[in-house]
Amino acid sequence: MSQKRVIAVVVTARPSYSRVKTVLEAINQHPDLELKLIVAASALLDRYGSAVNYIEKDGFKIAAKVFNVLEGENLAAAAKTTGIGILELSSVFDNLKPDIVVTVADRFETMATAIAASYMNIPLAHIQGGEVTGNIDEKVRHAITKLADYHFVASESAKERVIKLGEDSKMVFNTGCPSIDLASDILNSKQLSFDPYEKYGGVGARPDLAKGYLVVMQHPVTNEYKDSRKHIEVTLEAIYKLNKTTLWFWPNVDAGADGTSTGIRAFREQHQLPNVHFFKNMEGKDFLELLMHSDCLIGNSSVGIRECAFLGIPVVNIGSRQNRRDRGGNSVDVNYSQQEIEEAIITAVQKGSTSPSFIYGNGSAGKKIADLLADVPLQFHKTIVY
Amino acid sequence: MSQKRVIAVVVTARPSYSRVKTVLEAINQHPDLELKLIVAASALLDRYGSAVNYIEKDGFKIAAKVFNVLEGENLAAAAKTTGIGILELSSVFDNLKPDIVVTVADRFETMATAIAASYMNIPLAHIQGGEVTGNIDEKVRHAITKLADYHFVASESAKERVIKLGEDSKMVFNTGCPSIDLASDILNSKQLSFDPYEKYGGVGARPDLAKGYLVVMQHPVTNEYKDSRKHIEVTLEAIYKLNKTTLWFWPNVDAGADGTSTGIRAFREQHQLPNVHFFKNMEGKDFLELLMHSDCLIGNSSVGIRECAFLGIPVVNIGSRQNRRDRGGNSVDVNYSQQEIEEAIITAVQKGSTSPSFIYGNGSAGKKIADLLADVPLQFHKTIVY
Amino acid sequence: MSQKRVIAVVVTARPSYSRVKTVLEAINQHPDLELKLIVAASALLDRYGSAVNYIEKDGFKIAAKVFNVLEGENLAAAAKTTGIGILELSSVFDNLKPDIVVTVADRFETMATAIAASYMNIPLAHIQGGEVTGNIDEKVRHAITKLADYHFVASESAKERVIKLGEDSKMVFNTGCPSIDLASDILNSKQLSFDPYEKYGGVGARPDLAKGYLVVMQHPVTNEYKDSRKHIEVTLEAIYKLNKTTLWFWPNVDAGADGTSTGIRAFREQHQLPNVHFFKNMEGKDFLELLMHSDCLIGNSSVGIRECAFLGIPVVNIGSRQNRRDRGGNSVDVNYSQQEIEEAIITAVQKGSTSPSFIYGNGSAGKKIADLLADVPLQFHKTIVY
Amino acid sequence: MSQKRVIAVVVTARPSYSRVKTVLEAINQHPDLELKLIVAASALLDRYGSAVNYIEKDGFKIAAKVFNVLEGENLAAAAKTTGIGILELSSVFDNLKPDIVVTVADRFETMATAIAASYMNIPLAHIQGGEVTGNIDEKVRHAITKLADYHFVASESAKERVIKLGEDSKMVFNTGCPSIDLASDILNSKQLSFDPYEKYGGVGARPDLAKGYLVVMQHPVTNEYKDSRKHIEVTLEAIYKLNKTTLWFWPNVDAGADGTSTGIRAFREQHQLPNVHFFKNMEGKDFLELLMHSDCLIGNSSVGIRECAFLGIPVVNIGSRQNRRDRGGNSVDVNYSQQEIEEAIITAVQKGSTSPSFIYGNGSAGKKIADLLADVPLQFHKTIVY
Repeated sequence: MSQKRVIAVVVTARPSYSRVKTVLEAINQHPDLELKLIVAASALLDRYGSAVNYIEKDGFKIAAKVFNVLEGENLAAAAKTTGIGILELSSVFDNLKPDIVVTVADRFETMATAIAASYMNIPLAHIQGGEVTGNIDEKVRHAITKLADYHFVASESAKERVIKLGEDSKMVFNTGCPSIDLASDILNSKQLSFDPYEKYGGVGARPDLAKGYLVVMQHPVTNEYKDSRKHIEVTLEAIYKLNKTTLWFWPNVDAGADGTSTGIRAFREQHQLPNVHFFKNMEGKDFLELLMHSDCLIGNSSVGIRECAFLGIPVVNIGSRQNRRDRGGNSVDVNYSQQEIEEAIITAVQKGSTSPSFIYGNGSAGKKIADLLADVPLQFHKTIVY
Repeated sequence: MSQKRVIAVVVTARPSYSRVKTVLEAINQHPDLELKLIVAASALLDRYGSAVNYIEKDGFKIAAKVFNVLEGENLAAAAKTTGIGILELSSVFDNLKPDIVVTVADRFETMATAIAASYMNIPLAHIQGGEVTGNIDEKVRHAITKLADYHFVASESAKERVIKLGEDSKMVFNTGCPSIDLASDILNSKQLSFDPYEKYGGVGARPDLAKGYLVVMQHPVTNEYKDSRKHIEVTLEAIYKLNKTTLWFWPNVDAGADGTSTGIRAFREQHQLPNVHFFKNMEGKDFLELLMHSDCLIGNSSVGIRECAFLGIPVVNIGSRQNRRDRGGNSVDVNYSQQEIEEAIITAVQKGSTSPSFIYGNGSAGKKIADLLADVPLQFHKTIVY
Repeated sequence: MSQKRVIAVVVTARPSYSRVKTVLEAINQHPDLELKLIVAASALLDRYGSAVNYIEKDGFKIAAKVFNVLEGENLAAAAKTTGIGILELSSVFDNLKPDIVVTVADRFETMATAIAASYMNIPLAHIQGGEVTGNIDEKVRHAITKLADYHFVASESAKERVIKLGEDSKMVFNTGCPSIDLASDILNSKQLSFDPYEKYGGVGARPDLAKGYLVVMQHPVTNEYKDSRKHIEVTLEAIYKLNKTTLWFWPNVDAGADGTSTGIRAFREQHQLPNVHFFKNMEGKDFLELLMHSDCLIGNSSVGIRECAFLGIPVVNIGSRQNRRDRGGNSVDVNYSQQEIEEAIITAVQKGSTSPSFIYGNGSAGKKIADLLADVPLQFHKTIVY
Repeated sequence: MSQKRVIAVVVTARPSYSRVKTVLEAINQHPDLELKLIVAASALLDRYGSAVNYIEKDGFKIAAKVFNVLEGENLAAAAKTTGIGILELSSVFDNLKPDIVVTVADRFETMATAIAASYMNIPLAHIQGGEVTGNIDEKVRHAITKLADYHFVASESAKERVIKLGEDSKMVFNTGCPSIDLASDILNSKQLSFDPYEKYGGVGARPDLAKGYLVVMQHPVTNEYKDSRKHIEVTLEAIYKLNKTTLWFWPNVDAGADGTSTGIRAFREQHQLPNVHFFKNMEGKDFLELLMHSDCLIGNSSVGIRECAFLGIPVVNIGSRQNRRDRGGNSVDVNYSQQEIEEAIITAVQKGSTSPSFIYGNGSAGKKIADLLADVPLQFHKTIVY
């Protein structure tokens, strides 16, 4: 009689949860797998949207909570957050004794998961390696590739890149991105099925959404963190000037998050924004439905590059954060320039929705990943192929 | 008027110090560089040979000492040591404000240096990337390559490999290995210039060295740490059986160090070893001179693959630790097998010294690296080339 | 020729800085002392008023900054913040090599200072021991007394209590509270010398201050942190109902800070408060001047018990936080009851200012403490007297 | 139906385990209590006798292992070990959710247990408070008393002292010392029931024990750690000179442990000791039996003051470590003087065994403590009584 494989998945932020939700579901449903879900870092914190609340509401059982975010708007704090993460996660792994640890994407603190697992000789799976963005996230992402034993990548170009990085091609799997799984569920939505103001509160005006609306989500960029306030102000000015109905989402935690947040807060104190509402967070599926019926997404979220490509939603992508990520035909890139942003929004809204792109998969990534986790050989010893 | 570049070098172990000693000297002598030497981890500990004492005796000024070794013969302790290292080193870098941080090789705890520096947007130089060994050291080594901005590699094949890993070829420099610099100093030594028993003490018999002797240095292998006692016992049995004059060096700290050390200690209690002397440590230069006049080096130290190739000293390389590292003609590889070890030693001693190999450089690596540190553009932002 | 004694003072929060500012000045001015000021924990964080900015503006040189606040609204985070503080401060002390370390009062994270110093055999001075409040602060305060070598207490009853705790009476000094030093500077202020709205910004209404105003400052109580939101709401309701001109200050960080802050934020969203302005922070001296010309202070700040007693300002002290601290005649204690609070405010405003009390000193504590730091024997070895 | 109280006991060293073994047994046997045993620090380490092995052999189930010993022969490492202990234990308490945490005695790292528990509002019980020794242990011990809610003290004088420290007398219980419980079991032993050489190995000579023997156990003293090597050498010289049959036990971990250990190791290399055997560790009960049949215990272990008083065994107590602890009539105090030590041993051996003393209890402490743990009100809020 075979025993279930214990799969520990570490979720450290709200967007990472949205990204792997269908993986978690598929692991839970797989007869040969047992999920141990570890929630850590900003996913636990009220300031960053308490992803943990959604996780619990979605019915997932949490095996361990790891508080490791060290406060301080500086880069040393990001490093120390990672150090504390290693201290804590190695104890958690020691208790849970997983057969495989799964780490997601490229946030700085995911390195803690990768180090704790690989140093403890636990096979490590990495979701979403091989992509290119050109900042510290990229250093982290490719370094994790070199620590990981299995690679569940989201596109063909990512697969090729991971193999070029010297990984054994038998351990590199293009599963598509699990975030597309969620998107495929709402492809047929004809109209918003909920009132976002009522369901999610938030602050600011509550303009009528019936005649169309913009969505803004702009995160600080790690290696430009000193400029994060200036960058957000450019976008704020553009939106203020356009004066269209707009739904704005607060950023995640990052070395510069306080710059971005402070910028938004200060702008709100100094300006009347009669057509802008601010949300702190939203469940992934509701967020996608909101995007589905929007005129345009503005900012630098990977959702614009990924889910919106699949859904055919116009996107104005600002700055360097998504640099060199594979694009569908739905997005246009602009600099931190008020004029460029304004013009790009106007053009995008006029053009309207585009045809769907499958570069990030077709909506079955969660199930594919779970099947692979049940099937790959358990190994933590590897060597570069060249 | 130009200011000196501040170069922080982090040394975490006795062998790492030997490896970069000439780099430290060359930085100290360079008119445009200021050295900040940070001594950390096992390099500070008595149990592992207190490299710090040699460092101070050699006249280097220590800018900071970082104690981060968490005791415990288990893999979680290695992970936690790394976590503590990040906590401490990020404070040290915050204080010293280096222009470039230099990290050496591939010990698990060097990852702490790489993460602290790269997360703090400090340009990171890596010495000795691109080599292949096939265990956790390799995961660490290549992950550090993906975090590092400059690569000072030791051989042509290492250079090619780092470039294949997606690094900008303009930032990859084959300087040769600085450990060869030390070796080149003793090429012309005609006989031992010191009495090792008198100078370094140690325990066990004190056989006459005049008629030739073996040297043994065998470290535990991280991902085989449960077998480290068994592995050392095979070598002990072989040496016991051969009954030749032998100088044996205790291993460094590692997850399995206590297995290796315990194995040696137990064997000594149970056996008479009238021809074997045990040393805890030796200055790098004296160690090389000792090797120069030995009949053969046995074990799995990289010195056998590197310095001994340059010096033409026969080596019996045991097990997987040096897997796939470039070899000169001086070494033969054997398994953890008493018989294979015995036979290889006998053959090696008969064959005698070999012709020198320059695959790891010609003895000027320290100077080359210092010149490059003064010259490379200061940058911490990079992107994969493909 | 005598060398200066190096005095390391660790400031971990905005109110602690206000409390010891005159001590820092007196150390700086003392010919035999050299100040090494260490700023740590919430004193560095924007969310809690960035005391560090005031410290720098006041001209103090900062020897080290220690980020150790671990985010998370739970008690484990408070413990971990203390653990991280020990890790960091022991490195700082190792670098600065102080002759004496000074720790202030009883915040949970000050324990980190006390442990790092006493475990490293550095003589430890404690300011403001011996007081009674009846919550976790008290456990911390008296435990620090048992670790400290010198005690600079603020009142006669505190002195007696420290001696009863088994401390050598020769090492217990009633210097008065240094916070009174600041207060004595503004005793003669005839009217507000600055416009608080203009100088400190903040949010909310900007009612005219000419006809009198209330000041509110209510912190969460550590061992009641689950109730902190409920407690703040009672006060909010009372102030809302009274509808007088009110200046309200946000709380410090503590395990329940987010409960208090969230309570205030939510109340503001749901109610119109046309006579209430909210400040995040204020320089100590300006704050005292603001109090000096107010009608009444409401909340649970120790300023009400201490500086306001000296200044003769009416205080409505809410709940258990100041339990059993020595009182002047200026304050009245009430429960977490809307009605009690309202009635007490009305009565206090009617009664007006009271005669000054000297139970917490006469305004020369800073100088007395500096003189003692220069004079006490350097010792870290002690034994209980009974 | 009542639920069992969950009692977490944290054991951090070999001697602490011996001290509370009967408490652990009594908790396990109590119908209303559930034991969660946490083994931490040096109790887990091979170098310090792996108390964990005895614990498991004795049949206790271990709920969590906490590795927190930071290597380094310096005082900062002791502080940092405590900091890491807090980080780890707060996670453990968060998982185990104990109703009461029990901490033992006064080792520096026990402070981590006290802080984690009290900061997390978990009622804290302290075993063996109120004693006087006059070094850093005493600072720690009394500071823990101020953090603890229940006090299980070992003697009447300790009880009086804890009450004088301002603790509520209703929460101070003289249970006697649980170490005496073990001693009472072997009061009737007529001769050694085991061969110590065979059962415990060790190194050195194996002299015949039939004609009497000395036992030596000398630990480094924390605030004299720079002298620990000098201190041990005095004792070594005395024993060497006396040349009697001697069984010597290695010390525990402490800031100066390596000084003591190094001293012993060096002395052994330089001297022939034909009548001295060295043990690394011994089960508590066997150790007491060994003492029971010895001529004299020499050193500074609290066993000499406590169990040996109850058993009537002569003791030569060296130096300051047991200063001011209550004494029975069995011991004599000497300085770090070779001559004093020699003379005291000769006198003690001549005088022979003394009448038993009950100052540390009568052998039922374990049961008393378990009964109290089941009975005391659960509370973590306290205030000083005066």
